Amino acid sequence: MEGDPTLRLRVFDLNCWAIRYLSKRRQERIRLIGDMLRQEGFDLVLLQEVWSEQDYSDLKVKLGGCYPFSHYFRSGVIGSGLCVFSRFPILDTLLYQYSLNGYPYMLQHGDWFCGKSVGLVIIKISGIIFNVYVTHLHAEYCREKDAYLPHRLVQAWELAQFIRHTSKAADVVLLGGDLNMHPEDVGIRLLRGWTGLRDAFAEATHFEGCEDGCTLVPNNCFTVKTELLPFPLGIRIDYILYKAVSGFMVKCEELKTTTGTAPGMDIPFSDHEAVMATLHIRRQGGAAGANLGTAEPTLVDVVTEARMEVGVGLRAAQRQRYSTGRMAVLALLLLLLQAAAVLGALAGLAAGQPFPKLSFSLLAFLAIGVLLLATGLHLFHIIEVKMLQATEEQMRTALRALQERPSDG
Amino acid sequence: MEGDPTLRLRVFDLNCWAIRYLSKRRQERIRLIGDMLRQEGFDLVLLQEVWSEQDYSDLKVKLGGCYPFSHYFRSGVIGSGLCVFSRFPILDTLLYQYSLNGYPYMLQHGDWFCGKSVGLVIIKISGIIFNVYVTHLHAEYCREKDAYLPHRLVQAWELAQFIRHTSKAADVVLLGGDLNMHPEDVGIRLLRGWTGLRDAFAEATHFEGCEDGCTLVPNNCFTVKTELLPFPLGIRIDYILYKAVSGFMVKCEELKTTTGTAPGMDIPFSDHEAVMATLHIRRQGGAAGANLGTAEPTLVDVVTEARMEVGVGLRAAQRQRYSTGRMAVLALLLLLLQAAAVLGALAGLAAGQPFPKLSFSLLAFLAIGVLLLATGLHLFHIIEVKMLQATEEQMRTALRALQERPSDG
Repeated sequence: MEGDPTLRLRVFDLNCWAIRYLSKRRQERIRLIGDMLRQEGFDLVLLQEVWSEQDYSDLKVKLGGCYPFSHYFRSGVIGSGLCVFSRFPILDTLLYQYSLNGYPYMLQHGDWFCGKSVGLVIIKISGIIFNVYVTHLHAEYCREKDAYLPHRLVQAWELAQFIRHTSKAADVVLLGGDLNMHPEDVGIRLLRGWTGLRDAFAEATHFEGCEDGCTLVPNNCFTVKTELLPFPLGIRIDYILYKAVSGFMVKCEELKTTTGTAPGMDIPFSDHEAVMATLHIRRQGGAAGANLGTAEPTLVDVVTEARMEVGVGLRAAQRQRYSTGRMAVLALLLLLLQAAAVLGALAGLAAGQPFPKLSFSLLAFLAIGVLLLATGLHLFHIIEVKMLQATEEQMRTALRALQERPSDG
Repeated sequence: MEGDPTLRLRVFDLNCWAIRYLSKRRQERIRLIGDMLRQEGFDLVLLQEVWSEQDYSDLKVKLGGCYPFSHYFRSGVIGSGLCVFSRFPILDTLLYQYSLNGYPYMLQHGDWFCGKSVGLVIIKISGIIFNVYVTHLHAEYCREKDAYLPHRLVQAWELAQFIRHTSKAADVVLLGGDLNMHPEDVGIRLLRGWTGLRDAFAEATHFEGCEDGCTLVPNNCFTVKTELLPFPLGIRIDYILYKAVSGFMVKCEELKTTTGTAPGMDIPFSDHEAVMATLHIRRQGGAAGANLGTAEPTLVDVVTEARMEVGVGLRAAQRQRYSTGRMAVLALLLLLLQAAAVLGALAGLAAGQPFPKLSFSLLAFLAIGVLLLATGLHLFHIIEVKMLQATEEQMRTALRALQERPSDG
């Protein structure tokens, strides 16, 4: 295969917003997505939020002809929502579930139940090994006071570490997904800096689509307009990133996004716009450039900034660990007090019947409820503290390595 | 570094049995372990069941002189219990938490709370890249009726997949840990076959220690004698495994185990015996042998056998998912019935007061309790089913690849 001409690869990425019972006109949109994918004939399709395995199976049946290979990543209660369709054989797969992903009691946000993960599929095309990653990070529900920032940063860090450790034998690395981060956010700078991945939008020779490459736009009839008020053009949170690892060169010739409604239809494919990249991959003499994407002094700043944010999250988690622990102890004390009162009454110490049975038992049940709930939350926050500490420590180690490197050379 | 002579590496592995408040003479034993490690001066120390971070910190202080590099892997409520001490700089680390690890309601077994994982540390010695893995799989509480076999097989599979995907740039792979599997068990055959790892005990030129290399022996005063009754010599469940990935050769010159009491003491280091290997690593021309450790037709049998066991677990998990779901529905129906009765009474439909208040509220609380508990368990078994299905599917893909390979060649 040496001396091959350029390989042209068309990649499609979309957050499908296919939540059973909740997403509007879901089945219709899944049909539309399937029709379009069959028509367009991409090489590689990376989808997120395909929560229903039935939707995946329907797509699989429909796309069997043009994308004979596919993989659905199962995880969590609801699933990871991630799947991949490919024109080329999938050689191997691996799933890595993020250690933190929001809070189980934030039912209205629901991220915790999804088992957010990064999926890896390995594909070989014309002798070139592609490590293709698909992921979906924790949503940002309030940009001004983003309570999930530390969790999303832990995810961005774990994503970067997972890519670094698993892509060492790859020729080309591709990552597609809804990262729930704006291009200038610390998490995406961390991910790009620590892995060396390049942003297809920034690198594209030719671009066509929503202004600034936005993928959540006010023009889309399914987006919540009030959330986009501070961003009249919309926001860019869905990405295709890539890099060549050794002896290869990747160039983004063209990047496109969909723009609101699907062609010839009255509805869009999803509340997100799809991102479509045409990549040119070519062998080249010598190794690829430096492994890290950002100049190292800048990377030090980025890791430091990320570590600080993780530290903020760590202190908040420690406070919650403490307050849930205290609540559990108080509930236990109340129960013990009641038990003592009952024993006292049984032993005839108290004159008569000092407390009405009904409210006494209700209070006991309340105390048991609070005890169980507070204990569960306490255990959860113990795990949260552990994982934030682990990430902070890993970042510290990384910083030390970055700072020591120049003196080694 | 080309043309180097043989590199000699001394590796130590021990399950330390250091559970706070539960393990006998824990602090004394941790001190003993630290003293011995300092005296012996191994190159690499892989420990399991160091649940208390304080114990790790104490060891770190004591061993700082001879093992200047170390890493503690945090995860789960209690922790992963895994840590590594090294004479050589640790370049990078990664933790992978197994997706299944027993049941939260099996409090007496407690594995679920430990966040069982595999930890990876990357070390470079004389220009040779070592990927060193340390792990601890789910315990086997009853060999005749091992309810945890499917979970342990999922763990063995995920361990093998994690090693395969992360070790592609390594020159030498080392794995140490308490695998909770006998040498002939399907899980260990799967792990060895799918990764190509070799068993230091089986390969050692010279062996010294407990008969058959056993690491849980009746002679150890902390082991439960009744559990070892069917195995008069004890069992071998702690391993050091290794392989050379490319252009290197690894040979196990010597393997030792401790034998009950620590030298000159009245107690052993742990309820497990330590495993100590002396490995010789040498560059050699050409690539290493085949990547898979077992002849492929045999490997097909092993993966088939493992897949069958995972299938058994899957059906059991599906049954539990169903019965917990049914229980939740029944509790919900009871609550609705009670609500209807209350509404009826309020509307004056019922003549008088048909039910005593106290037992009525107790029944309601009971129903709420059962509803919450059954729902929690149902969610847990949904995840269990998902992960067993995912593993079964991955094994099926692997089998297809194995069976297709000969026709490709």
